[in-house]
Parts: sequence; C-alpha cells; structure tokens
Amino acid sequence: MKISARNVLSGKVVEVIAGAVTSHVRIDVGGTIITAAITNEAVEDLALKAGDEACAIIKSSDVMVGK
Amino acid sequence: MKISARNVLSGKVVEVIAGAVTSHVRIDVGGTIITAAITNEAVEDLALKAGDEACAIIKSSDVMVGK
Amino acid sequence: MKISARNVLSGKVVEVIAGAVTSHVRIDVGGTIITAAITNEAVEDLALKAGDEACAIIKSSDVMVGK
Amino acid sequence: MKISARNVLSGKVVEVIAGAVTSHVRIDVGGTIITAAITNEAVEDLALKAGDEACAIIKSSDVMVGK
Amino acid sequence: MKISARNVLSGKVVEVIAGAVTSHVRIDVGGTIITAAITNEAVEDLALKAGDEACAIIKSSDVMVGK
Amino acid sequence: MKISARNVLSGKVVEVIAGAVTSHVRIDVGGTIITAAITNEAVEDLALKAGDEACAIIKSSDVMVGK
Repeated sequence: MKISARNVLSGKVVEVIAGAVTSHVRIDVGGTIITAAITNEAVEDLALKAGDEACAIIKSSDVMVGK
Repeated sequence: MKISARNVLSGKVVEVIAGAVTSHVRIDVGGTIITAAITNEAVEDLALKAGDEACAIIKSSDVMVGK
Repeated sequence: MKISARNVLSGKVVEVIAGAVTSHVRIDVGGTIITAAITNEAVEDLALKAGDEACAIIKSSDVMVGK
Repeated sequence: MKISARNVLSGKVVEVIAGAVTSHVRIDVGGTIITAAITNEAVEDLALKAGDEACAIIKSSDVMVGK
Repeated sequence: MKISARNVLSGKVVEVIAGAVTSHVRIDVGGTIITAAITNEAVEDLALKAGDEACAIIKSSDVMVGK
Repeated sequence: MKISARNVLSGKVVEVIAGAVTSHVRIDVGGTIITAAITNEAVEDLALKAGDEACAIIKSSDVMVGK
C-alpha cells in the first residue's frame, strides 16, 4: 500500500518503550533517531520490537521548521 | 527556546518550493530528506532559503509507524 | 505495509478535486463520504482517480467526538 | 455550533474503553467503525457512553489516503 | 454540540484572508489573536466574516509548549 | 529559535497535571487558559512548573473554527 504522506522514512526500530496507554517507538533513520508515540494496541498489532525494519510516516503538514 | 516536541532534528535546507499558499521545505537531516509544508508567510518570516541551518520539528504523536 | 494508525478504512474514490496546492479526495467508505486534503504531488504519486479502491487512514488521536 | 472540519460524521457510540489517561471511543458511522482517542476528562465532560448519538469529527488535512 | 477538544476558545473574527485553497481566519480571543488555516469551502459553509462571534477549537494534543 | 507555526502565544504556566504518560499543562495567555497535552518526558526536559513564562505553540492548520 502506497500512502499520501510525503515522509515515508525507512529505518530500524531501536527501542519500544511501553507506557500505560501509549508506547514510544524510536526508529533509526539513517543515523537520525525519530520518536513515534503510538497506542500499545498498534505495537501489538504490528508486533513491533527492537531490530525490526520499519518506516516513520509523517505528513508534510505535521512537520514544522525552526531556524 | 526549548520545545516540548520530541523530534527536533537539526539539518540543512536543500530546497524551498513555493506554492500558491504553502511552500514545501525539504530539509536534509543526516542524509535523510524530510519535507515540511508550511505557509508562505512562515517562509518569509523565517527568511528560509536553501543552505540554511534549520530544524525539522515533529511531535511524537504525529509520527506513525509502518511495518 | 501495516500501519499504526487505528483507522484504516477501505473504500472507493468518488471524486478528486484538484486545487492550487492541495486536492480534496472524497472516499466512499461503506456509504459514508470521508474527505481527505492531500498534496497534488501525492495525488500524482498514487495516480488517484475516481473509481479507485483506496483507504482513508486516520490516527485515533486525530478524531474528535461531538455530542 | 457549526465547525470548519470537513468531516462531521454522525453515528452511534458502540464502546468507550477507558485507559489511564485517554479513552478509546468507537463510533459506528453507517456500518463503519471509527476509533477516537480522547482524554478521560472529555469523556466525562460529554458524558459519553455506549448507545449515545455522537459525531466523529475529523479535519480533511488529518485524513491520509492509501492505495 | 459539545466537542471533545479541550480548547474551545470564544472570541471574535477580526479578519478572513482568502488564499487559493485555504483561508487564514484571525480570531481575537480575549486580546490574543489566534490564527486558523481552514478551507475556503469551510469559510463559505460557516459564512465567516470579520465581526462574527466564533470559537477557536484546538485539541490539547495539538498544543506544544516552548520555554 | 524562530518557528514556522503561526501561533506562538506567550503566557504563564498556571498548572501542570501529571498523568500516567502525558501531562496537561495549562497556560494563561492574556487571560485565556490554553491546555496542552505533552509527554511527561517533555515536562521534565523543559523543567516546567507553575509560574514559568512559556509559550503555547499551535500550527494554524491545527486550529478549527466553530460558529
């Protein structure tokens, strides 16, 4: 499935930190660590664990710029 | 100013593509290109241009994971 | 590719309305019309047109409730 | 009150799953289940419970398309 | 209709700036100007104009903090 | 650091309500209380507490209008 989000960044899961409701998934994208906050249900659904190949998916309208 | 967003990714602007209302700003973060869609007003306000040092700022709750 | 968003709603594209920068894509999901605003670039990239099978993808944290 | 979001989808609450901080509210919109993640405070404020008539409200810019 | 978003801020429209696709609506909320970017279709749908009583509606998860 | 978000609203933190995973930070902006939901990690990182000068930062595309 192709997706309309402009940022589909391939990388590797380095860590999954489970919380009460949401988990923080840290993905290494070419040396840059990107953190996603997703539901625990989603972590289970995708069977996410450290070492997995995974994409960080971000709509361009959700990226701000700082200078 | 420090910001609560968990992803503040330093990089370099490689391209600013102006549209009718919004501009696409492509930022090279350690070899990964991240695209932001921001208002033309913001581009002017930050005087953004190719070659600038800039950060891509993304809340962790705006990052999805695909596997 | 499976995705962490909790709402992946299968349907059929009924209309693609191109704008200067973004397009409105109307998707019929089981009789309910859901409107997406995506970049013209994404419409081209996915070669979206009326009649296509497509999914409306929405993070649960982006859904508000009104009563 | 009318709202600027393009997707105001009328339906019926089928389930409210309370978490530590946020609740998942599943709304049946014409046979399609849409899941919202809202604060427990909002669930209380709207006195949401299964069987209620309610709307799933989603900005068009928060809907992605997958094909 | 009550809404789950935690920030429903009553104010007065001071300006509607129409763009090619989206309009910027500036709302004076107790002396603070808040800018919304909504579709031109929504401006028409709500018949928004300067002087109108209106609310700026923002989910708490869409508010970042800077210090 | 200047940021592309159109709403950077200076105010004072009136309350930080810690939850299991996220905290609610209430900021008084010229008499208007704006609530942010951010991660507990971000609260620690910014050492946020009642009385602090802080900004509520909101992208214009994340502000809806109700009338």
